[in-house]
This record gives sequence, C-alpha cells and structure tokens, in this order.
Amino acid sequence: GAPRCTRLAPLRTRVLRCPGSLWPPSAMCIRDRAGAAARGEAAARPVALEEEIVSEKAAEESHRQDSANLLIFILLLTLTILTIWLFKHRRARFLHETGLAMIYGVLMGVILRYGIHVPSDVNNVTLSCQVQTSPATLLVNVSGKYYEYTLKGEISPHELNNVQDNEMLRKVTFDPEVFFNILLPPIIFYAGYSLKRRHFFRNLGSILAYAFLGTAISCFVIGSIMYGCVALMKVTGQLGGDFYFTDCLLFGAIVSATDPVTVLAIFHELQVDVELYALLFGESVLNDAVAIVLSSSIVAYQPAGDNSHTFDVTAMFKSIGIFLGIFSGSFAMGAATGVVTALISFSLFTKLREFPLLETGLFFLMSWSTFLLAEACGFTGVVAVLFCGITQAHYTYNNLSTESQHRTKQLFELLNFLAENFIFSYMGLTLFTFQNHDFNPTFIVGAFFAIFLGRAANIYPLSFLLNLGRRNKIGTNLQHMMMFAGLRGAMAFALAIRDTATYARQMMFSTTLLIVFFTVWVFGGGTTAMLSCLHIRVGVDSDQEHLGVPESERRSTKAESAWLFRLWYNFDHNYLKPLLTHSGPPLTTTLPSCCGPVARCLTSPQAYENQEQLKDDDSDLILNDGDISLTYGDSTVNADSITSSGTSRRIVGNSSEDALDRELAFGDHELVIRGTRLVLPMDDSEPPSSLVDSARHGPA
Amino acid sequence: GAPRCTRLAPLRTRVLRCPGSLWPPSAMCIRDRAGAAARGEAAARPVALEEEIVSEKAAEESHRQDSANLLIFILLLTLTILTIWLFKHRRARFLHETGLAMIYGVLMGVILRYGIHVPSDVNNVTLSCQVQTSPATLLVNVSGKYYEYTLKGEISPHELNNVQDNEMLRKVTFDPEVFFNILLPPIIFYAGYSLKRRHFFRNLGSILAYAFLGTAISCFVIGSIMYGCVALMKVTGQLGGDFYFTDCLLFGAIVSATDPVTVLAIFHELQVDVELYALLFGESVLNDAVAIVLSSSIVAYQPAGDNSHTFDVTAMFKSIGIFLGIFSGSFAMGAATGVVTALISFSLFTKLREFPLLETGLFFLMSWSTFLLAEACGFTGVVAVLFCGITQAHYTYNNLSTESQHRTKQLFELLNFLAENFIFSYMGLTLFTFQNHDFNPTFIVGAFFAIFLGRAANIYPLSFLLNLGRRNKIGTNLQHMMMFAGLRGAMAFALAIRDTATYARQMMFSTTLLIVFFTVWVFGGGTTAMLSCLHIRVGVDSDQEHLGVPESERRSTKAESAWLFRLWYNFDHNYLKPLLTHSGPPLTTTLPSCCGPVARCLTSPQAYENQEQLKDDDSDLILNDGDISLTYGDSTVNADSITSSGTSRRIVGNSSEDALDRELAFGDHELVIRGTRLVLPMDDSEPPSSLVDSARHGPA
Repeated sequence: GAPRCTRLAPLRTRVLRCPGSLWPPSAMCIRDRAGAAARGEAAARPVALEEEIVSEKAAEESHRQDSANLLIFILLLTLTILTIWLFKHRRARFLHETGLAMIYGVLMGVILRYGIHVPSDVNNVTLSCQVQTSPATLLVNVSGKYYEYTLKGEISPHELNNVQDNEMLRKVTFDPEVFFNILLPPIIFYAGYSLKRRHFFRNLGSILAYAFLGTAISCFVIGSIMYGCVALMKVTGQLGGDFYFTDCLLFGAIVSATDPVTVLAIFHELQVDVELYALLFGESVLNDAVAIVLSSSIVAYQPAGDNSHTFDVTAMFKSIGIFLGIFSGSFAMGAATGVVTALISFSLFTKLREFPLLETGLFFLMSWSTFLLAEACGFTGVVAVLFCGITQAHYTYNNLSTESQHRTKQLFELLNFLAENFIFSYMGLTLFTFQNHDFNPTFIVGAFFAIFLGRAANIYPLSFLLNLGRRNKIGTNLQHMMMFAGLRGAMAFALAIRDTATYARQMMFSTTLLIVFFTVWVFGGGTTAMLSCLHIRVGVDSDQEHLGVPESERRSTKAESAWLFRLWYNFDHNYLKPLLTHSGPPLTTTLPSCCGPVARCLTSPQAYENQEQLKDDDSDLILNDGDISLTYGDSTVNADSITSSGTSRRIVGNSSEDALDRELAFGDHELVIRGTRLVLPMDDSEPPSSLVDSARHGPA
Repeated sequence: GAPRCTRLAPLRTRVLRCPGSLWPPSAMCIRDRAGAAARGEAAARPVALEEEIVSEKAAEESHRQDSANLLIFILLLTLTILTIWLFKHRRARFLHETGLAMIYGVLMGVILRYGIHVPSDVNNVTLSCQVQTSPATLLVNVSGKYYEYTLKGEISPHELNNVQDNEMLRKVTFDPEVFFNILLPPIIFYAGYSLKRRHFFRNLGSILAYAFLGTAISCFVIGSIMYGCVALMKVTGQLGGDFYFTDCLLFGAIVSATDPVTVLAIFHELQVDVELYALLFGESVLNDAVAIVLSSSIVAYQPAGDNSHTFDVTAMFKSIGIFLGIFSGSFAMGAATGVVTALISFSLFTKLREFPLLETGLFFLMSWSTFLLAEACGFTGVVAVLFCGITQAHYTYNNLSTESQHRTKQLFELLNFLAENFIFSYMGLTLFTFQNHDFNPTFIVGAFFAIFLGRAANIYPLSFLLNLGRRNKIGTNLQHMMMFAGLRGAMAFALAIRDTATYARQMMFSTTLLIVFFTVWVFGGGTTAMLSCLHIRVGVDSDQEHLGVPESERRSTKAESAWLFRLWYNFDHNYLKPLLTHSGPPLTTTLPSCCGPVARCLTSPQAYENQEQLKDDDSDLILNDGDISLTYGDSTVNADSITSSGTSRRIVGNSSEDALDRELAFGDHELVIRGTRLVLPMDDSEPPSSLVDSARHGPA
C-alpha cells in the first residue's frame, strides 16, 4: 500500500525513551577506551570483519507483518471488551476484565509461539563486524555513502543462529519504556483524578503510613526472604548467575506495588464500606509511586562501590537521598503544575466555557506536559502525574464547564480503560512470547511465600499501631481484607519488564509475571467470597458511612483526623480554593484585614456570587463511585445525591472547626433525610449467595 | 529519574513503519551481492575499519532532551489553543487555528534553529566501518558479546562532520510515517464521519466528478507545467540533479490534495449555502483519498523499465491498474469493515447500552483495526478509514446509545482537533528545522502558477459539463469560490514529506511547504472577504436550503440526483438499514413475500416497534454542522431541529419514490413551520461589514 520512505528520523515515541540508551556495553566501552587511553593506544583498533549472509527481507512484507501484529492487540482488546460486556451483563464477578484480558493474552501468546512460523525467506541481511566498542551510533561507509546505525540491544549468543526465527516474537514485544511513557501515565493520572478526596484526606494519616512505611517494610521483608532463598539456591547449585542483595531488594520493591483494581471494582459494585475502600485505594495509588521511586533509588545504589556488592553506608544514604529527592521533587512538580493549570483555567476557562473542546484539549495537554516536564527535569513522570491528577481534580476541575467536565472525565476514563486492559493482555502475551524467561521453582515458591509475609508485615503491625492512634479502629476483618487485597498488577509488571538484561532480572520478571497472574485470578476472583466470609458490610451508600458507626466513633473520626485533616482543610478552604477556583469564600472574608486590598484584587467576582450558593467541592468534584460507575452507567444518582447533600451541608462559615463539626454532625440529618434511600439493611451474618443476590438487585 | 533499561524491543509505533525499511542502500547491496555471486567471490569482503571517536553522550541527558523536545510540541499546541480561544472569543476570522498553529511552529522553528545550541559534550560515540553492503541489521561483536544495530538512514556527507550539531534538529523531526499511521487516520476518519451524507449523496455525481476527474486533471496539468518549468531550469542550468517526468507527476498528485479546513470552518460559522459546503467538503475529503492512491501508483510506475525514465505503455497501464486496484480494494475493505462493525453493534449494542464506555471503546478499536487491516492487506489504510468512517456514521452510529454517541463524537472530535493542529504546527516547525530544504525560485514560481492553472482546469470545465447535466446549476460565483477554496494542507504535506531522499523530492517538499503556507494564510484569511464580494448567500440554516431555491429548481434537484441518489436510497433504505440498524422498516415489509421466513428471522423486534416512530437516520444521525459546532458549543438546536423535521418527514412508505417526493415536497411545510426560525433573510448585495456583523448576532 504505502510507497517506500527512505528518510527515517527518530520516531516521536522513540524520543520518549528512557535513559536506557545507556547500556552496559557502551559503559563497558567507556572503561575499555579509558584503559586504552591509559595505555596510550588508539581507543578502538581496526578489526577483522566477518559477515554472515541471510536472505533479504522484503520490507513491504515486514510492514504488513507489523500492521498484522498490531492488529492482534487491537483484536485482543476488542475480544476482551465483548466478553467483559457479557460478564457485566451476567453480573459475573468471579473474573474481572483485567483477568480476562490476561487469559486472552495467554491464549494469543500460545498461538504466536507455537502456531505461527515465520517463512524463512523473511530475514535480515545480517553482517557482524568484530569491534572492541559498541557505540550508540555506528556510521557505516558503503562505497562513499554513509549510513547511520543505532544500537538496538544485546543479542544472547544462543539466539545468534536463529535471529530470524524469533524475529516475529520480538516484533510483538514492546520497548518496556512504552509502559512508563505511554500506558502507565493515563492509568496513574486517572487514579489520582478519581481519588475520593474527602475520604482520602480523612484517612490521610493511615494511608500515608501504609503507603510509605508499609511499602518500605514489605520491600525489605521480601528482599531479605528472597536473599535467604537465593542463598539456598546457591547452596543447592540452582543459581545460574549472579544474584546480589540489591537484586533481592529490587525484587522486593517491584512486587510491593499493589494494584487491587479487580478488588476495587467489586468493592464499588457491592458498595463496600467506604473507609475500607478509601484505605485500599489510597494505599494502592500511593504505593505505586513509592515503589517506582524506591526501585529507581535501589538501582541507583547498585553501581556505587564499583560493583563490589558489599554494604556501603554512604551509598545507602545516597540512595535514601535519591529516594527523598526524586519523590519530593516529583511530588512538588506534579502539585505545582496542577496549581499552575488551576491558575490558567481559573483566569481563562470562565471565558473559555463556550468552547468545551478547547477546554478538554487544554486539560489533556497540560496533564501530559506535567509528565514530560518531570521527565525532562529528571524526576519520575508517573509520580508527578499522580499528584498533578490529585491537584487538578481538586482545583482545575472546578473551573471547567460542566460540558467539558464530562468530556474530560470520559476521555481519561477511556484512556485508562484501554491502557489497563492493554497492559494486562500484554502480560498474558509475554508469558509465552518473551524470549528469556527463567522459571526457577525454588525462587517462585520463595517469592510467593515472601509476598505473603511481606504483605502481612505491612498490614497487621501498622494497623495495630494506627489503631492505637485512631479511635475509629480498623477492624480485624478489614485488616484481613486489606491483606487479601494485596494484588499485583500493571505497575509491578512494568517495573519488572523494565530491565531484563541480567539473569537475576529475567528470573525476577518471570516470577513477577506468575505472581500477577495468581493474585489477579485467585484473589481477584475470590473477593466476593472473602467479603462475605469476613462479614464486611456491603451495600453502603458512600454518603452514609456514618450510619453504621456509633456516635462515639463518629466524634472520634473528627478527633483522629483532626491534626492533619483540620490543618489541611483550613488552609485549603480559606486560601487555596478562593485563589485557584471560583468556589470557596471570597478571600476578603478569609484573609486578615491587613491585606484587604490584596484580597480584593485576588478575589474573582464569581466568588462573591458563589458565596450564597456555595457548593461542597470536596464531595461533588470528586470523581467518586457514582462517576467511576458511569463506566457501567448505573447509580449516577449517587453522585447527584452527594452534590445535593453537599450543597445543603455547606452553607457555613469559613473556620474549619465548625465546618468539620457540621460535616460530621450532618450524619444524623442524613440518616433522617436519606432513610428512605437505604438500599438493603443487612446483618453481618449473611450467606454469600443472598449477598450476591442482594447486590444484584440492590445498587442496580 | 527513570532507571536504566537495557532490553530494547522495537517500539510499537516503530512497528507501524512503512515499507521504507527497504532503503536504496539495501537494494544496492542486493545488486552488489548478485554481481559478486556472478563473479563467484564471497559476497562481501573483509574491509578496513577506520573509526572516528566523538565524546560519549550521557543517555540520561538525551532522555531529558527528548522529553523537552516533546514538551515543545505540547506547549506549541497549548499556546495555539489559548490563542484560538482568543480568536473565537473575538470572532476574528482572518486567521484560522491551523494558520495560527503554523505561525507558532515557524517561530519555534526559528528558535530551535538559531536560538538553541547543543552543548558539544553531548555527542555520539561514532565509529564508521567501511563495508560494501549496508544491511537493515548489523550484528556487532564486542569481545564475544553481540549487539544488534538497526539502520537509521543515510547521512549526507556534508553532515558527517557536524552530526552532533543537527542532532537536536533531527530529534524534533518525525518519521514521516507517523503522519500516515498516527496523525492522518483520525483526521480522515473524522472527515468521513462528519460527512453531511444527505447533501453528499444528493450531489454525489458532481462530487465524484470533481474528486476523481478533477484531481486527475489537476495532477496531469500541474505535472506537465512543472515538467516545462524543470526543462527551463535545466536550460538555465539551475537544476542540481535528476528531475524526471514521473517526479513532476508525483508533485502534481501531491499538491492536488485540497484541504479547505479553514474555509469550511468559516463556511460553517457563517452558515454558507449548503450545496456549496457539500460540494467543497465532499470533494476535499474524496480527493485526499484519490491523491494518496494516485501518488503511490505514480511511485509504483517509477521503478518500471529499470530507471530508464522513458514512457512505457505497459508500465503506465500497470500503474493505472495499481491505482484502480488499491483504490477499489481500500474502498471495499473500508466499507466492509464498516458493515461488519455495524453488524456487531447491531447484534450487541442494544444489550450493551448500559455500558457506554465499552461501546465507545469498541467503536474506537474497530475504526483503528480497519486502518491496520487495510495496511496489513497492502491497501491504503487512510482510504479504508475514510470509507469506514462514512459507513460507520451511516449504520454503526445508529446502534450506539445516545450516551456513547456523544462520547464517540467528542472523542473523535478531540483526536481530529489535536492531530490537525499538531500537523500544522509541525509544518511550521519543519520550515526551519528540516535539514535538506531546497528552495528554487523558478520551481516555486512555476509551482504556484501550476496549482492555479491546475485548480482552474479542474473546477471550470467540470462545472460546465456538470451544469449540462444538473438543472440546479453550480453558479459562477460558486465556481469561483471553489476555485478560491483550493487550499493545500495536511495531506499534501504528509505526501511531500513521506520521501525526501532525492534532490527532486527535497525541492518538491520545500515548495509544497510554501504552497501550504501561502494558501492557508492568504486564501484562508481572505475567505470572508471573498464570500461577500462573490455575493454568496450566508446565514442559511442547513435545513432550509430549499428556501432560497425556487420551486422549479427544487424539483430539478430531485431529477438531477435521481438516477444515483434514488438507486442508492432505495437499496439502502429497504435492505441495508433494516439489516444493519434498528431503524428503517422491518424487512418483512420490504423483502418480496417469497423470502418471508428469512426476513422474519433477520428482522429485529425493535424494527417493528420503530415502525411507528421511525427516525430519519439520513439526517439526525449525521454529524452535521450542529454537531461539528459542538466544538464551539453553539447551535446544537440546529441538530435537534433536523431531527424533529426528520421525525415528521418520515412517516412514509418504503418505496424510495414517494419517500423522495415527500422529502423534497416537505420543503414547503418546513418553510411554513420554520418560518419563525429564519435567522436573517439577507439579500446577496451585502457589504462584508454587516455580513460579519449579522453572522455575529445570527447563529450564535
């Protein structure tokens, strides 16, 4: 179809590539050259060039092949969607769409691996020249004309003879950076965007504890267990290569990123206790960020002390510094850009409202530029995007017109949906198409044992400590549920596949893959059963979380969340909201009278108007259950109800104190007002059957 | 921030690369090897390897650089959007968003070219080895380890010494295939999708004539003029390389693709005469398809007669055959997949309606898979996508739920918007960042002269011939307007940049770039003025095109469009609609009684229900002006009005005859019914000032 093109500039997405272009070889060749220079010779010497001829590949053919490959993925997604629809239609909960995507991926992988064979005539002209260095770019002089070659990667010697055989398999394999630069951002952004901020901030303390302490704990627990396991393997001679403690720690960091997307979907569908939902969701969102930064700082540790893998205090502190640096940097950048976009939208969108398309476009571009900016500054784009999402949902979103709020929401929803299912189906595919798998029974068993212990060492001790602090205890059944909900997903996979050069990394990747499969299929499938046998309340309207909780505890929530929540709420509501959005009270009322003129010029006319009919942004601007479930079209009424309740709830002063009081006191009113809307008052001792059954009739 | 990655599989988008992987060099090396084999020697002999060392590039640095580069584009888009908003706000029509994007692109290009200098320490380790062949893949053996290199492209000798200098400039340059595989499809699809089918089909004959005959004519006219121009240059010794007649023809094909996006935007805003709109839009959409296939078949001609660029009858017929083959193939494939999706959606979406996200996802994936499928089968994906879009808008779209109709519309709207502005800003950028520009005054002047003549030779003769056929004449002022509206845009650029290897191609590319700039800025900007001085009616509601036209002409429209329109309408309404959508009459009523049982089992229950409250799909399921203008939020009432009129219009039998009669007769009723909604009855002799003015108050 398409005519030939001879000019090949680097692809834009190629440009999105990670520092990975710094391979070991080139590093090696630096050392080599250094040494050579030291010996005062020319860095690289002329060498013999022996070549092997393989028959010429028709590029047209390869292009078709390529399109066909991509088509495979599209069809996989299509198939997944069709089946998801069937499942949703039947309200089957034993298998989530992501699990489904993986299954299809596996099947397709089997077909590609064993079904299809590339005709042997489709080959490269390969010509291997013996040199000392392998630079990133090679200039080849073909009878006066110069051609530029770029380094693609290393080929393990045993693949040399059958380069063309697994050509096709390599074709259906991505640059791992695609995940970090194209697929993960929308997912993470959407997560931050759909964070239920009211509940999130109420449990901020606990969530942060689980996310930071917990992830660190589980990382080190898993790391040390795996180190023991590796030692055992070394003794029994199962170890085929180097495996240092840092590798174990890296593995710990990789598999510490939980991704309970399956569980949360079911939680939402069954309207499980909101506290639990908030804890789980908040933790999983944040610990993705923690895990990714943790892993990069562990990798940063590795080269220190020139590969003598001894413990090195300075290097360790360096790593810790890197961790703190990258994390806080990314956080700051994300939040900052979020605020900037809020400011832009604040000053503009009120006039822009006529053009929803432009708004949505701007919003999308701004979110993306956050990611790029962070990467450009050497921070972690994914983390930045997460916090940018949170900030934007909190401020920028308020300044969008209703029309484009819907558009934006739906756009990111779709992107998230596609990206997620794509990653999971790709996971399934790699199980068979990935070339360098290394399944080691001992390591695998050890790993499963480790992640179990690691999760336990994360949840139970922390919950115990937290319960000392919070009077609204995290019940043991909730703890068990959190323990159970420790699924591994997209982030773990992306981190694992990011680097599969060494023996250790390959083993880690294969094991991570199995862990993801197991947790998503088994734990994900067992969620409903687990919920019922743990007697966890379902069918709770997200506004009525106070209903179940007795008076004393409700007060305690206030006390518990006070020191953090109150502080935040106060600052945010009095200064940030008015500055960045058109909601919130006018600054003139909140700022001390001394800076009256400043306040006046900073306050937008809208603010005054709004003052009467103030909306509770904290609740109605969250993409909450109601909105998420726009996905499946049901219970948008839910969102409305919040809005209304919010509206009623917030005809209040500006001090956080009474605002909080009202907010919490309102539980009673709500009980009266909403008594009618109670879906199914269920006692804890309910058999799963009727639970599913009730859920089927309940929230529909 | 991201850790290093060593395993680099080809990027997915990389996979989307065109047959371009078949460079001349590798072709050369085939011949070389063939010759060598004939002489019975080893194909390639060991050769000396002389190398130049350039200092090592820090990959981390390059990654940041890359992100920064991408950031540039994002910021360009953001800037454009912000300014567009300003223009829309001020209702300024002298400069369209695309023109704006180009300006910003140019500015950014200047900055990149002259402003920024890459620090000289950021360089490649370059090492050039002297070999006879340059294969697509090179295996480099670095002390036992093998590394794979892939061919990136040729580097002109004079660039050799400053590879690192224009490194950055090359970084902000795309693989041309990105345009064909990522940016064009959404644009083309959206064009097909937003085709106003009722008016399109009514003028089908004329549109086809302009698109096929017209494009062919202008291609050959331009081609021969340019050949004369080239001959002149050869005489005056301005020609720096080969320039064959096929190159001229290719140039003709490239610049024959009109893209009056600017004009159409203004047309819509001013609600210009719908006939004109339909003619222009239909032509521009189709002639993109024609131009792209034409160019590939001309390229296919080139190699024939092994580079002896003599006229070769067989080769010419081969090219014609290729043209017909590719075009009809792509058309068939697009239509087919469109129908398939319609069938799937038909059988599914009625049940899927609860889950709009899934519907939109499916719709999106299906559209994309059409493109891939066509490419995989060696057809032209872009053309396939176009007709797929038309088909889907006609059938599949009917089966979507209202919710996801909105979502889908908005999604493709956004994609189209982003892609379009991206391409145009990139055009501006390339004016300065592209390395091998070749501006030749003679050629440029000749080209401008040629496109003018080509357009004229397209519009006027054809209009004359068509006017013999159609009694509803295309007025001379409309002809002048169509002449004037021959802007060149995205497609011309994409075709030109696709291959810039040879001297001829580079000159063509540079010239095309200038042509695009000129037409978009000058013609685009002058549209409003042109409209008024040509006395073209504006402020026509798209439903009321009958109002202006006297009774006689309206009848004539029927007569004119009869033979094609009637045939199509009949078949479509009686068989396709019922089969593929839930609208339309049940088959049982349309099929002959003999095949009653078939009809019964094929007819969906909805069809019977629908029979009472049938909707006129032809009108209300078109993404018509009203919908397009959702973009800027105004006149959705427009769409509703059509629907209502449609609903009233179609309580009719199934024979196309009386359906048509009613459809056309209804003009009168509409005149009565809608008399109130007449926005501004304006006489043709209106000064531009009040024209703009009226438009400002009118359709807002």
